[in-house]
Amino acid sequence: MSAQDKSVIDIVQGGPPPSANFGVLSPSAKQRLSEQLGPEGALLAPEDLQSYAYDGTFLEHRPDIVVLPRTTAEVQTILALATEEHVPVVTRGAGSGLAGGSVPLSGGIVLATTRMDAILELDDVNMLVRVQPGVVTADLHAAALARGLYYPPDPASQRQSTIGGNVAMCAGGPHGLKYGVTKDYVLGLEAVTADGRLMRTGGKMIKNVTGYNLTQLLVGSEGTLAVITEIIIRLIPKPRSTRTAMAVFPRIDDASRMITIILNAGVVPATIEIMDQDSIRCVEEWQHAGLPVDAEAILLIELDGEPSAVDVELRDVERLCSERGATEVRLAANAEESATLWAARRAVSASMARIRPTKLGEDISVPRSAIPEALTAIRAIAAKYGLLIPVYGHISDGNLHPNILFDRHDPEEVERVNKAAGEIFDVAVGLGGTLTGEHGIGSLKKEYLALALDPVELAMMRQIKDAFDPLGILNPGKVFPARPA
Amino acid sequence: MSAQDKSVIDIVQGGPPPSANFGVLSPSAKQRLSEQLGPEGALLAPEDLQSYAYDGTFLEHRPDIVVLPRTTAEVQTILALATEEHVPVVTRGAGSGLAGGSVPLSGGIVLATTRMDAILELDDVNMLVRVQPGVVTADLHAAALARGLYYPPDPASQRQSTIGGNVAMCAGGPHGLKYGVTKDYVLGLEAVTADGRLMRTGGKMIKNVTGYNLTQLLVGSEGTLAVITEIIIRLIPKPRSTRTAMAVFPRIDDASRMITIILNAGVVPATIEIMDQDSIRCVEEWQHAGLPVDAEAILLIELDGEPSAVDVELRDVERLCSERGATEVRLAANAEESATLWAARRAVSASMARIRPTKLGEDISVPRSAIPEALTAIRAIAAKYGLLIPVYGHISDGNLHPNILFDRHDPEEVERVNKAAGEIFDVAVGLGGTLTGEHGIGSLKKEYLALALDPVELAMMRQIKDAFDPLGILNPGKVFPARPA
Repeated sequence: MSAQDKSVIDIVQGGPPPSANFGVLSPSAKQRLSEQLGPEGALLAPEDLQSYAYDGTFLEHRPDIVVLPRTTAEVQTILALATEEHVPVVTRGAGSGLAGGSVPLSGGIVLATTRMDAILELDDVNMLVRVQPGVVTADLHAAALARGLYYPPDPASQRQSTIGGNVAMCAGGPHGLKYGVTKDYVLGLEAVTADGRLMRTGGKMIKNVTGYNLTQLLVGSEGTLAVITEIIIRLIPKPRSTRTAMAVFPRIDDASRMITIILNAGVVPATIEIMDQDSIRCVEEWQHAGLPVDAEAILLIELDGEPSAVDVELRDVERLCSERGATEVRLAANAEESATLWAARRAVSASMARIRPTKLGEDISVPRSAIPEALTAIRAIAAKYGLLIPVYGHISDGNLHPNILFDRHDPEEVERVNKAAGEIFDVAVGLGGTLTGEHGIGSLKKEYLALALDPVELAMMRQIKDAFDPLGILNPGKVFPARPA
Repeated sequence: MSAQDKSVIDIVQGGPPPSANFGVLSPSAKQRLSEQLGPEGALLAPEDLQSYAYDGTFLEHRPDIVVLPRTTAEVQTILALATEEHVPVVTRGAGSGLAGGSVPLSGGIVLATTRMDAILELDDVNMLVRVQPGVVTADLHAAALARGLYYPPDPASQRQSTIGGNVAMCAGGPHGLKYGVTKDYVLGLEAVTADGRLMRTGGKMIKNVTGYNLTQLLVGSEGTLAVITEIIIRLIPKPRSTRTAMAVFPRIDDASRMITIILNAGVVPATIEIMDQDSIRCVEEWQHAGLPVDAEAILLIELDGEPSAVDVELRDVERLCSERGATEVRLAANAEESATLWAARRAVSASMARIRPTKLGEDISVPRSAIPEALTAIRAIAAKYGLLIPVYGHISDGNLHPNILFDRHDPEEVERVNKAAGEIFDVAVGLGGTLTGEHGIGSLKKEYLALALDPVELAMMRQIKDAFDPLGILNPGKVFPARPA
C-alpha cells in the first residue's frame, strides 16, 4: 500500500473516530470521583474540560471529566470505575505530545498525572531514580545533576513534558546515537491495568531476564495498555566535560554526510543536530542570533567525556568538517557560548509558529545512510506541493523533523498538506525507515501504520492490546488504524 | 512465598514436565521433513537424537527428530507442520545455554539453527549487521572488528554460542554496565510464528516508535513466542583503546564496594569482574596462572575509549583501589598481558568442572548496592549446607554467578543443593534483585518465577504466550511454572 492511496484519510483530522460503543459516565460515577478526589482532583467545569481538550497538535476534543489523582490507589479506583461503566480513559502528562496521543477523541475521562509529581527516591549508589509519572523531565534532569548524575534523554519539550509522558511515547531527543532514548533508561514500572489491577515490571537491576520484557512493551505503548504510575529510571555518571561546535555548510548534502564520516573516524558525538536553510531563517528572523542565513545547513555537534579525549575529538571533528565542505566551524569556548548555540536550535520549533497558522511536525526515522536522499526527497515534495517544509532534527540517529507549515482553515492547502505528508511517509518507508522516531503514532499517523508495519506484526500488536485491555477503554482510537469493516 | 516452601520441586530435575497433551510426529511427517530438508537437514538416528538431547546444564531428554533448516521458508514449513500435528518445537543454537532452555523435555522437534549461519549484510555506513540466527557470536565479533566496528555483548560462551541463542535468552556478559546487553543491540527481527507465518519487527532505524516494541518482547522470550530467523544488530565504533587492570583484595568486602567508588569518581569502566577466593583457587589449581590464592577476591577492570582518557581513568582506578584495600594493582602493559588476565577469568567456569561432578551455575542479579550483602549471604548458605559455592561475576552490573558444586547422583547432597539454591533465590529477591540476569529461566528456574514476579505481570505474560502460541507448542514447559491444578 502506498500512503497516497489513502488520500481519503484526512491526516489533519486525526483519522476516523474509534468505532467502539462506549458508555457515558453516569452522574453517580462523576459524583463518586468528585468525592474521592476532591475539588482539585476532579474537574467538571466547561472551561476546565476545554483546558484538557488538546495537546501539542491542532487536534481538539473535550473530555467528560478530568481527574488528577495523587496516588496509585486513586488511579486504581478510577480505572475500576471506567471498566464498570465502559468509559474511555485517556492518560496525559503535560499534553505537549505531537501526535494527538492524549486528545480524548471519544470523550470520557482524561486522567492527568500532573499531581503525581514526586521524586520518590534518588539512589546515587545504584544510580537510579524512582519517580511518579507527573515529574517534569527537566526537574528530573536537575535532580540528577545535583547529585553528579545524568539522565541523557532530553526531548525538546523537557521543560513542560512529564517523564510519564516521555515513557508512554518513548520520547527521544538529540542524544539517541550515543546514549539511546527513554526506553534505554527505564528499568522498571508500576502500572495499573484497564480493570484497576496493580502490576509491577522489572526492578532496580541492570540485568534482568526473568520472564518477558513487559517493561519495554509498556514503554512507547502510548497509554493504550496500562496507566503507568511509577517509573524506575537508570542514571549514568555526569560526563566529565561537554563541548559544542557549530559547523556551517553551503551545501546540505555535505552536512548530511558528516555523521558517517565522523563515526568512521572513531568519534561518537553526544549528538549531531541539523538545521536546514528554512529552519535557520525561521529562527534568525525571530531571534537575530547571528545564524548564517545563506548556508544550506548548519550542524550542531556536541562531544562529551574525559576533557582530554573531548579536546582530541573536537579537533578531529573540526578538521573533518573543514575538509568536507564546512566554511566555518565555531567552537563554543565555554558553557555560555554553548548555551547560545543550543538556544537557536531549541527555538526552531517555536519560531515556525510565527510563519504560518498551523504546523504539522513530522518525525520520520531512516537508516543513517539514507539521510541525504531523504532530505532531497523532502525538498522535492515541498516544491511539488508549493509548501514550506523546514527540516531539522537529530541526524546522528537518522531522525528528521520535516515541519509542514500551512493554514488548517484553508481546505485547498490542507489537501496539499495531506498529500505531501503521505509522500513523506512513503519516502521514509521506501528508504527502509519508519513513520515516527520519537513522537509516536497517536491519532495523526495511525491510518498509516499498515504502511510501515508487517501485517503479522500488526495482528500480534492487536492481540496484545486485546489481552491487556479487552474492553478497549484505554486511549481508544490511538495507535491502531480503524479495523477493516 | 519463600523459595524454601517449594522444596518439593526438584531444581536439578528442571521441575515437573509440561502438562499439555502433545501429538507424536507421524511417520509421514517425518518423511516429509526428511525429503524437504535432505539427509543433513533432518536427523532421526538415535545417536543424532542423543546429540541434541542436552544443553549446558545436566538436563537431558531426546527429541523425536532434529531438523536443521537453512532458510526461513524451511522454518515456516517445519512450524506449519508442527502446528498441524500439535508437536512441540524446541529451537536451539549451539546448545550452550545454562538454564535448560533448549532441552526438549517433551520430545518432539528440535529445530537447530546452526546451518542458518550466514552474515547476510555488514553495513558499515549504518553500523549494523543483518545475520541469520546460527552465526556464532565470536564470528560476529570478528566480522565487526574487521571493519573497525564493535559488538559489545560477549557472553563467556561466545566461541560456541550463536547470536540467535544470545537473542532468545538476552545474553549478557561483562559489559552490561557501560554497554548494555544483547537487547540493547537488536534493532529488528524476522521471526516465524507457531503456525508458520512470517513476521518482521523493527528495522534498520536507531529510533523507532511505530507501534509496540515487539522486538524487545521477542528478545529474551526463550523460544516460547516465535522462532527467530533473522536479526538486525546495531554495532558501534571500536573503542580507540582498551586497558586492563587486576586488583588484589585481601578482603572481599573491600573488593565488592569498589564499583560504587569508581563510578562515583565519574569513571565508567567497560567492565569490572569479580572472582572470589574459591574461584581463584579453582582456576589456579588448573592453570597455574600465578593468581593470588590467598586473596579473598580479585577484580578485573577494563577501561576503554580515547587513549588519553583511558590513561587518566586507569590512574584514577589504580589510586582508588589502593586507597580502599587493594594490596596490588597489576596493569596489563599490552594486549598480550591483558589477554592473560582475561584467560584466567574465562577459565573459571570450566575449572570448576574438575572439582566436583556436577555444577549448578546460578545467575542472580541484584542492585549494585546489595552486592556486599549478597556475597556475605551466599557464603553463609554455603557454610550452612556444607557446599562449595565459588562466586564470580559481573559486579559492575550486579550480576553474580554462585556455582554450586556437587554430585547429582548423591540424593542427600542433591537435597542440600536444592535448599541452598532456593535460599540463594530468596536472598536475591529479598535484596530487590531477581533470579536471573543473563542465563534465562528455562527449565531450571521456572518453578521460582512467582517468587520474583508480580502475579498480575505473570498473568499478562501468560496471555501474551497464549496469543502468540495458542497450542503451546513452542518450547513447552519452559519459562512458566506449571499452572495450578
